[in-house]
Amino acid sequence: MNLDHVYSQLTIKTGAKLALVVLDGLGDIAIAGQGEITPLEAAKTPNLDRLVVAGCAQGRMTPVAPGITPGSGPGHLALFGYDPLEYEVGRGVIEALGLGVELKAGDVAARANFCTLDSQGIITDRRAGRIPTEVCEELCALLAGKIRRVGSKGAEVEVIIKPGKEHRFVVIFRGEGLEGPLTSTDPNREGLPIGNAQPEDDKSPAQKKTSRAIAEFYKKVLPLLAGQPKANGFLLRGIAHQPHIPSFAERYQLRAACLAVYPMYKGLAQLVGMTKIEGPQSLSEQFERYLAEYDNFDFFFIHYKYTDKAGEDGNFEAKRKAIEDFDAALPILLRKRPDVLAITGDHSTPCPLRGHSWHPQPVLIHSKFSGSDKLERFTETGANLGSLGVFDAKYLIRLMQANARMFDKFGA
Amino acid sequence: MNLDHVYSQLTIKTGAKLALVVLDGLGDIAIAGQGEITPLEAAKTPNLDRLVVAGCAQGRMTPVAPGITPGSGPGHLALFGYDPLEYEVGRGVIEALGLGVELKAGDVAARANFCTLDSQGIITDRRAGRIPTEVCEELCALLAGKIRRVGSKGAEVEVIIKPGKEHRFVVIFRGEGLEGPLTSTDPNREGLPIGNAQPEDDKSPAQKKTSRAIAEFYKKVLPLLAGQPKANGFLLRGIAHQPHIPSFAERYQLRAACLAVYPMYKGLAQLVGMTKIEGPQSLSEQFERYLAEYDNFDFFFIHYKYTDKAGEDGNFEAKRKAIEDFDAALPILLRKRPDVLAITGDHSTPCPLRGHSWHPQPVLIHSKFSGSDKLERFTETGANLGSLGVFDAKYLIRLMQANARMFDKFGA
Repeated sequence: MNLDHVYSQLTIKTGAKLALVVLDGLGDIAIAGQGEITPLEAAKTPNLDRLVVAGCAQGRMTPVAPGITPGSGPGHLALFGYDPLEYEVGRGVIEALGLGVELKAGDVAARANFCTLDSQGIITDRRAGRIPTEVCEELCALLAGKIRRVGSKGAEVEVIIKPGKEHRFVVIFRGEGLEGPLTSTDPNREGLPIGNAQPEDDKSPAQKKTSRAIAEFYKKVLPLLAGQPKANGFLLRGIAHQPHIPSFAERYQLRAACLAVYPMYKGLAQLVGMTKIEGPQSLSEQFERYLAEYDNFDFFFIHYKYTDKAGEDGNFEAKRKAIEDFDAALPILLRKRPDVLAITGDHSTPCPLRGHSWHPQPVLIHSKFSGSDKLERFTETGANLGSLGVFDAKYLIRLMQANARMFDKFGA
Repeated sequence: MNLDHVYSQLTIKTGAKLALVVLDGLGDIAIAGQGEITPLEAAKTPNLDRLVVAGCAQGRMTPVAPGITPGSGPGHLALFGYDPLEYEVGRGVIEALGLGVELKAGDVAARANFCTLDSQGIITDRRAGRIPTEVCEELCALLAGKIRRVGSKGAEVEVIIKPGKEHRFVVIFRGEGLEGPLTSTDPNREGLPIGNAQPEDDKSPAQKKTSRAIAEFYKKVLPLLAGQPKANGFLLRGIAHQPHIPSFAERYQLRAACLAVYPMYKGLAQLVGMTKIEGPQSLSEQFERYLAEYDNFDFFFIHYKYTDKAGEDGNFEAKRKAIEDFDAALPILLRKRPDVLAITGDHSTPCPLRGHSWHPQPVLIHSKFSGSDKLERFTETGANLGSLGVFDAKYLIRLMQANARMFDKFGA
């Protein structure tokens, strides 16, 4: 019997309020000789501590599979309860979401970057000397102004171009009957010409159509870049369409709202059909808005970026501070305590690694029925001792639903 | 998406050195009234303790599935990262490996044992009164001298006979177009005649050919044994060919060496394509050889048998001593510390059970990125508190690869 089907059959609407607070990249590792302590352990978190003592179940979560370090896409899909091995989101789509592009069903998105070509069309620098962001913005504006669509009449494909940082940008192809994935045009090393974006499935007419649209796009763009000293070519990678993902509302019987500041997380939430709430620019504002929207939704995804940022910088103190800032804001959320509150990360971003990692992130569930693990704090080492054990992140939302009494008994 | 495929796609060669030290049957159980302590807890392990304090992640591993007690074959396949439910190795193959037979692709191996038949060919003792090993060796030499092959010209099948302990031996059939599995010739109780080795898939010509070869083998052997007082018949079980297993080198992008003393473990390592390093007869010698071969391989499987032996004998003191002997030798290995070191068992062999068991074995991973679980020792009870939780043994090597930074990020 399919497990998702079982969950779905057992689901009861209860009107309970569920809140998932994601401290991005929360988990860390203790290193002997570096104090053997993590930022979460070092942080003063009186409000979180009170919540733990009030009764929490703790554990750790494997974001994708043992040893696998997830990107933000798979990390969040798992938190939203979608197996990231089953629901893959292409890099182009993630980048487009990250730049705030409102993707529509059927859109094909590609990561793009400017590159340098010699007179023979051979790539001499795959990153166009890392041109300044301003130059990238100018060039994208130029291209966007001149090229709005490709394809012939009746089979037109709209083209959307958005600049990113330095040499990076994204291109979205929008029209009837488009589909990814296509192969990259990046030969992955200098000394070769730009490749063709070819269908990965050569029996797919939609992939073929997309391939033709991209070839035509190249024909239009390259002459416009011809005079550029560095950025006279471009490469496309991660060419894929927005995948079909069953909607959050249907899957969990929950009206979900996204309270995120950064575009990528809004985009990921939108991908599963959450309502994006715009406006808040800080965690306090996000929590205030949660209070204001309390009656309008059943599930709140609240995303906090700064723990991850500090981890990526390898900045222990900044990560500790980010956690303390979260703790300081927490009482706002607790003014209207959700029936089920989960606090976790989408993955670990340990300072010693300066990047995402595979280490299971700590997780806490607080509800009237979570029970208490009799721990005094929420930490990595403490979470090792919790009643939830180490489990796959995709089950978190199911545990939240269970704590909300949203599941009927299975069998008699 | 297939998980093995994902791991494989993400794999990066790093040149890191990984070492897996298997203390066979390491795990044990504490019994109230018997001091409530395990040999690992009782042992004095100053070197291991120092390693733990330097920073280790600990946990416990389920060798096959909850409640399943593995033999050495499945236990080691899991440690090598192959799902033992997917990759089955016949008992004949395992026994042949254990007796040091160098199996070739396509070989069909069978566990054999002498039995006693009455004048009507009815089995009166399935173990031939457990004849002494010397008698078994003499009989095997006799048979091996007289029967080198069966089958007709152009379709000959070579026969290899190797004695084991007491009434046990193995027979290997080598030739073109052979295949297992075949049914056992052992009726599993006295009072019945010897059965026929029949194809399990009666549409397989290769199994049919093997069945005919075995029938002919019986016709040649039985007359030679006719005068024996006890060992005048024999039974064949676990008749199977060496399975196709994807090579370790290809699967993990690691050049692997096996440093084992006992033939079975060498054989199991060889089955996945590891290079057998011959010579060392003790753990100190194995570790010395590891130092000498450090530059030639990326992965070292180092097998230590005596913990299991002591467990099988129910000898707590011997098991404690075996662990202390390991600890005494450990500094040799640490002279060239591998980038990732894992220490574990292939299963538990608790003294109170005097045999293999299903209890998850403790495991430790030490690397620059393992983090520290802040435990002071490596023990069963301590491992329960570790950050790795209880996980399937087949993922150990994936965690080792992650610790070696051998995986790219999954998704953006």
